[in-house]
Amino acid sequence: MKTIKDSVHDHIEVEGVARALFDTPAVQRLRRIKQLGPAHLVYPSANHTRFEHSLGVYYLACEGLDHLGIQGKQAERVRAAAILHDIGHAPYSHTIEEVIHRHTGKYHDDVHELLADNEVGDVLRDHGHNPDTIADLIAGEGKLGQLVSGELDVDRMDYLVRDAHHTGVPYGTIDHSRLVRELTLIDGELVLAEGNVPTAESLLLARALMNPTVYNHHVTRICRGMLQRASERLLAETEISAERLRRMDDHDFFAALRSADATENFARRLGARDLYKRAVWAEMADVPEGVIDADHDAIREFEDEIAAAAEVEPESVIIDVLGRPSMTESSTRVIVNGEIRRLHQQSALVSALRHVQREQWRLGVYAPAEDTDAVGHAAESVLGLETDGALVSEVRSPGKRTTLDEFGTQSGD
Amino acid sequence: MKTIKDSVHDHIEVEGVARALFDTPAVQRLRRIKQLGPAHLVYPSANHTRFEHSLGVYYLACEGLDHLGIQGKQAERVRAAAILHDIGHAPYSHTIEEVIHRHTGKYHDDVHELLADNEVGDVLRDHGHNPDTIADLIAGEGKLGQLVSGELDVDRMDYLVRDAHHTGVPYGTIDHSRLVRELTLIDGELVLAEGNVPTAESLLLARALMNPTVYNHHVTRICRGMLQRASERLLAETEISAERLRRMDDHDFFAALRSADATENFARRLGARDLYKRAVWAEMADVPEGVIDADHDAIREFEDEIAAAAEVEPESVIIDVLGRPSMTESSTRVIVNGEIRRLHQQSALVSALRHVQREQWRLGVYAPAEDTDAVGHAAESVLGLETDGALVSEVRSPGKRTTLDEFGTQSGD
Amino acid sequence: MKTIKDSVHDHIEVEGVARALFDTPAVQRLRRIKQLGPAHLVYPSANHTRFEHSLGVYYLACEGLDHLGIQGKQAERVRAAAILHDIGHAPYSHTIEEVIHRHTGKYHDDVHELLADNEVGDVLRDHGHNPDTIADLIAGEGKLGQLVSGELDVDRMDYLVRDAHHTGVPYGTIDHSRLVRELTLIDGELVLAEGNVPTAESLLLARALMNPTVYNHHVTRICRGMLQRASERLLAETEISAERLRRMDDHDFFAALRSADATENFARRLGARDLYKRAVWAEMADVPEGVIDADHDAIREFEDEIAAAAEVEPESVIIDVLGRPSMTESSTRVIVNGEIRRLHQQSALVSALRHVQREQWRLGVYAPAEDTDAVGHAAESVLGLETDGALVSEVRSPGKRTTLDEFGTQSGD
Amino acid sequence: MKTIKDSVHDHIEVEGVARALFDTPAVQRLRRIKQLGPAHLVYPSANHTRFEHSLGVYYLACEGLDHLGIQGKQAERVRAAAILHDIGHAPYSHTIEEVIHRHTGKYHDDVHELLADNEVGDVLRDHGHNPDTIADLIAGEGKLGQLVSGELDVDRMDYLVRDAHHTGVPYGTIDHSRLVRELTLIDGELVLAEGNVPTAESLLLARALMNPTVYNHHVTRICRGMLQRASERLLAETEISAERLRRMDDHDFFAALRSADATENFARRLGARDLYKRAVWAEMADVPEGVIDADHDAIREFEDEIAAAAEVEPESVIIDVLGRPSMTESSTRVIVNGEIRRLHQQSALVSALRHVQREQWRLGVYAPAEDTDAVGHAAESVLGLETDGALVSEVRSPGKRTTLDEFGTQSGD
Repeated sequence: MKTIKDSVHDHIEVEGVARALFDTPAVQRLRRIKQLGPAHLVYPSANHTRFEHSLGVYYLACEGLDHLGIQGKQAERVRAAAILHDIGHAPYSHTIEEVIHRHTGKYHDDVHELLADNEVGDVLRDHGHNPDTIADLIAGEGKLGQLVSGELDVDRMDYLVRDAHHTGVPYGTIDHSRLVRELTLIDGELVLAEGNVPTAESLLLARALMNPTVYNHHVTRICRGMLQRASERLLAETEISAERLRRMDDHDFFAALRSADATENFARRLGARDLYKRAVWAEMADVPEGVIDADHDAIREFEDEIAAAAEVEPESVIIDVLGRPSMTESSTRVIVNGEIRRLHQQSALVSALRHVQREQWRLGVYAPAEDTDAVGHAAESVLGLETDGALVSEVRSPGKRTTLDEFGTQSGD
Repeated sequence: MKTIKDSVHDHIEVEGVARALFDTPAVQRLRRIKQLGPAHLVYPSANHTRFEHSLGVYYLACEGLDHLGIQGKQAERVRAAAILHDIGHAPYSHTIEEVIHRHTGKYHDDVHELLADNEVGDVLRDHGHNPDTIADLIAGEGKLGQLVSGELDVDRMDYLVRDAHHTGVPYGTIDHSRLVRELTLIDGELVLAEGNVPTAESLLLARALMNPTVYNHHVTRICRGMLQRASERLLAETEISAERLRRMDDHDFFAALRSADATENFARRLGARDLYKRAVWAEMADVPEGVIDADHDAIREFEDEIAAAAEVEPESVIIDVLGRPSMTESSTRVIVNGEIRRLHQQSALVSALRHVQREQWRLGVYAPAEDTDAVGHAAESVLGLETDGALVSEVRSPGKRTTLDEFGTQSGD
Repeated sequence: MKTIKDSVHDHIEVEGVARALFDTPAVQRLRRIKQLGPAHLVYPSANHTRFEHSLGVYYLACEGLDHLGIQGKQAERVRAAAILHDIGHAPYSHTIEEVIHRHTGKYHDDVHELLADNEVGDVLRDHGHNPDTIADLIAGEGKLGQLVSGELDVDRMDYLVRDAHHTGVPYGTIDHSRLVRELTLIDGELVLAEGNVPTAESLLLARALMNPTVYNHHVTRICRGMLQRASERLLAETEISAERLRRMDDHDFFAALRSADATENFARRLGARDLYKRAVWAEMADVPEGVIDADHDAIREFEDEIAAAAEVEPESVIIDVLGRPSMTESSTRVIVNGEIRRLHQQSALVSALRHVQREQWRLGVYAPAEDTDAVGHAAESVLGLETDGALVSEVRSPGKRTTLDEFGTQSGD
Repeated sequence: MKTIKDSVHDHIEVEGVARALFDTPAVQRLRRIKQLGPAHLVYPSANHTRFEHSLGVYYLACEGLDHLGIQGKQAERVRAAAILHDIGHAPYSHTIEEVIHRHTGKYHDDVHELLADNEVGDVLRDHGHNPDTIADLIAGEGKLGQLVSGELDVDRMDYLVRDAHHTGVPYGTIDHSRLVRELTLIDGELVLAEGNVPTAESLLLARALMNPTVYNHHVTRICRGMLQRASERLLAETEISAERLRRMDDHDFFAALRSADATENFARRLGARDLYKRAVWAEMADVPEGVIDADHDAIREFEDEIAAAAEVEPESVIIDVLGRPSMTESSTRVIVNGEIRRLHQQSALVSALRHVQREQWRLGVYAPAEDTDAVGHAAESVLGLETDGALVSEVRSPGKRTTLDEFGTQSGD
């Protein structure tokens, strides 16, 4: 048996197939994938990786399985899935996931082929497991797949607490050890025991507060937009394939951006934290439906059109549309008065949080600092934003104090 | 200058009038008033006191004043008010506050006469302050009174974080240092700067989760009910006056309960944690308006009637009605797009939290373990609870697992 | 099963005999015994109790037994001993232990008769345990007694971490979960596995730093001296017996001090934190052997003699002699290169720490602020202190800054 | 003014020249230099960077300067030095510092030329500072240089606490805020105020415990040895100059190792955590003086000789000799009884810690797992180790449990 010291869960014991899996190159690679992508450009301490997160998810899965009384091969499969649940991540985690998906049709949790034919597959087969079954669990299938990927999964319990520890933002500090203790399986469904409505709510609330503060902080979003644009150019202008990009780590990716002519400007900017700024930052009510729901190609056309109107390079305009709000946790099952109910049936907070997500939603258009005025005005007219100018220009006016948005950032944006 | 080490805010510097105030017997007495009254019977580590809390409130007031740019005598007054804001507390803090109020007409923040004629008054006058002005600030009056007692006061910032540290329940862990940094005074009103809607929301959410888990945990409520009944008997059956009771500390109070015939049974039970149990635990919808809004005398009559019907001693029935939900923080002022708005205008969470409070509301009727059945049935009929029996008896059925309610408690309730 | 939330070890599960023991009045009483006696007068947050500490010791004993592979009745006995190990404590823990011992011949870990004839004994016998066997374990006898009371016991692991959490002084923060993991039993002796010399050293170092900063902070020592003197007077001047004093809790004790004429002055002073000050604070080298090793009666005679010489009341002189340094942990067994060695054989730190303890040793003579000069000079001559006056008067000179000694204190001492 | 959120010191305010310095590419580059080099291969959470550490050092310098009462340009210079003190670090921090030094003659704190001619120099000159003066401060020169680099510098206060936070090993948790409060300048020397012998000792003790557990954990040392060898080959076999290597970040460095034929095997091994193992692990007493004090060339000859004797590739033998123990902190000045003394004069711990360092010292010889036997035996004879074979082979025998050394590691070494 091996003991690993984790900054969040302290000592974690690893043995058997788990230990062999952690030793595979595919899992070791996660040491070089930042958990929060470019969020360290906002919160300098946020350098934690998918590897330590995977370790934490494995730990919480062990705890959860213990409390559920699940043992043997069945438990071993879930633990394996916990360890492997993130091996499909591209460099910088979710940052360029959509770019990869457009080219390969695969999201990070679609890992059947990744498990099939390398050391990971060998380790699984050597220990009597079918890689496909593990890949199914990772995709959230089956009754125990919920524990790995579902509305009450140990994945989000770990990341909330870990992201809080590493950013210094306390909002993610949930009572994870109560959550794993209160899990029950009823008729094949993962359910929180009687009296845990507040426990379930706390998970949603933590996410609702971490979203604007960390995950969708506007500087994180700007970096994400720049990295997405850079990745697209890398795929378009070099011989690097999307499949190869998906398997890179943060080192390879950054080195590749630096060495290609088409992307070295983005690499330099990100490396020196010389970031694009907001030209537009518009609330949902002011954005036409057609823009909110536009697909990738339509967005690219808008960008080109705005660039033309503003007389700037096409690379100088990035439109960033967040998806429409959704909340997986709202269907969490909780026992109330002896009856299994969905959280949204029980808690007035759930629909309120949907509303809050809509309030927090913003359309961003980003450009180099010197172009924000031209791009902002062009974007207003091209995208048909309902604004009297005040709204859009608000974030551009230099004297304006926009505390939340700047908070935690390392330099002026 | 003096430096004091606090488990929450680390080093706190104290000098001048502040130091002299901390050295008065009236403030030193707060070392013997538990911050959360009997909550240590649920969370064994919750033994922190009003003294360390007052120290923390003083510290946050200093920080807030610094960020607001307020100095000199005006700042000194606010700091004095922060130190003194809780000297009006009776033993066990809020626990018997209503009992005291019925006899003296005073709540804990009504301290004009407490500041007038003892060492505290002397210290204040020696430093050129009018005790009445400080008492006004403690009551929340004036523009800086809001900082001490208002919807954005440093009082609640400290207690949330401190109660989390000492109970081990993480929900109170807010970003207090951001809150004090983002305060601004606009036209004499305390306002959170632009971009702090989530910061303001986090304060409400922390309270919404600490309420059912800590402050109104059903075992805390049972202990509170027993202590209130015991205090009433102490006042009725001994020569101790309400004014004297108000000035006691936890030591005096517990010793007094032990030495009076009328209360020694309560003292023994609380000392041995041999607590009353729930005979009724009913949701708001099932309780007649007349019971929800009944005054103290009406409640006492209900109790007597139930005791008679159940054929138990009058002391064996305690009815516990929480007040109707309210939420001070909902009127917090936040700047949104350059405009001062009230939080409830801006945040969908506020009305949802009101709803949640209603969901969490419970009527409790408590009795010795052996009497819960008799008392429960009598109470249903006397109070006219709309129930088919299932609801009320739920918490009494021994085999039933009621996780939240038991969680954190030290022994079976 | 019952789960209790602890601020240090988070969720602690309690069942069977353990749960029944926690519910006895003798263990519940520990909720009213402060872990660090009067140290909260130096560190305001240090209000934690022997109850939560006992819970923590129970938790670490469970962990240690698990790692040692010990189960069944044998393990149950050790867990019971862990829960009960402190029930022999008098009010304010170690503070008045010597006073009690002089009158009853009993230290706090001599609990045979306390376990024999009350609910604790009943619970133990009901679960098939002999109370005497448990009392032996508490006294550190037998191979598993070492886990409860020995050089590597879980008692000190818990208190170091807990005292750090509640005082805010970080020095006690050891890696307790590594310590319990690395325990092994070899030939009936508790031993730390190979490679744990630094782990063992860390335990000593933590104590070496907590001693001057917390446990023997000079203000803690002054309060202790005052409480000891007050207890002696209580026993001498009232009908309260030493046996009864031993069974009191902090509430009873404080109330008793307040109500007796002979002690109410001490009660008032301690309640208002109007403490004695140092009249003498002398290093070991400057104190005659005869004073260092004087017994209680000799010390009392010195005190009377000093009082007479200084022309003050006998109550106004308190001599405080710490015992000669000792270090239990130095005999900790650690495996080094496959061989069991004692820590002091292996670690150069051990003898250094003995030296450090001697360096930190101080003789204190305390008196009311206005008498320190007279008492200081009288004490120098009566005790024969080797001093040119400078040393002894150092702490009395008002302008002198004595940082460490004042640090953390609430008011000038 | 800008506020940055740090996971260790919470909110840190940055303005003026400090803000401009943080925005330079040279400082931004530190975001891509891991603070502990390869220690994340032992402690998976140890991914923190020189950037956040520099931020922390800046913060503690601000606090220290405040407490010392130093303001204006003089303080600004020290703050600038704090921000810039680590910009001379090569990839992976200290890991390849000796390699760089052999080729360039420069250690990481020799930054005169780095400050002279880039944006950093411009920023400094724009704000009226001479880059050379700042570089002198970074080298520890002048009375305030001690605060940045000296026996009591804020550098080590920050790294101990930060490394503890990110590894999860508690030993580094010192009372840094007390340390900066107790600093005084006397006759141009930085001194700890009266009563701080334990405070000074705690700094040494923290380092003494972090050394074997983290900084010189044997797996960290193996990785360091592999990275040093790889760097040497990179300089020898490619066109990359030592000056260019020094200015790379971790991304460039890892990419360079991967792309050169001479080093890609090391890159693959480190990436997959397929590390060399110990062939020899010998105590100081068993190693000839000539080996302990051998210079780089002599060591390279030993390595070649061992490889030849063991019939393995030259790349397969790495000799790792730690320097002879030293302890900067031992000359810390503390006021004792009104007199400035050096800590080693005052504290028995200091010489004990020197002894401990010697006890902890080990000579390591590392090789691929399959070659450890052959290399071990060859090394014993080539280096003339005084051993009966048991010592050296100890760590190679598979059944042997070597807890400390394995602790915290992710896979078997």
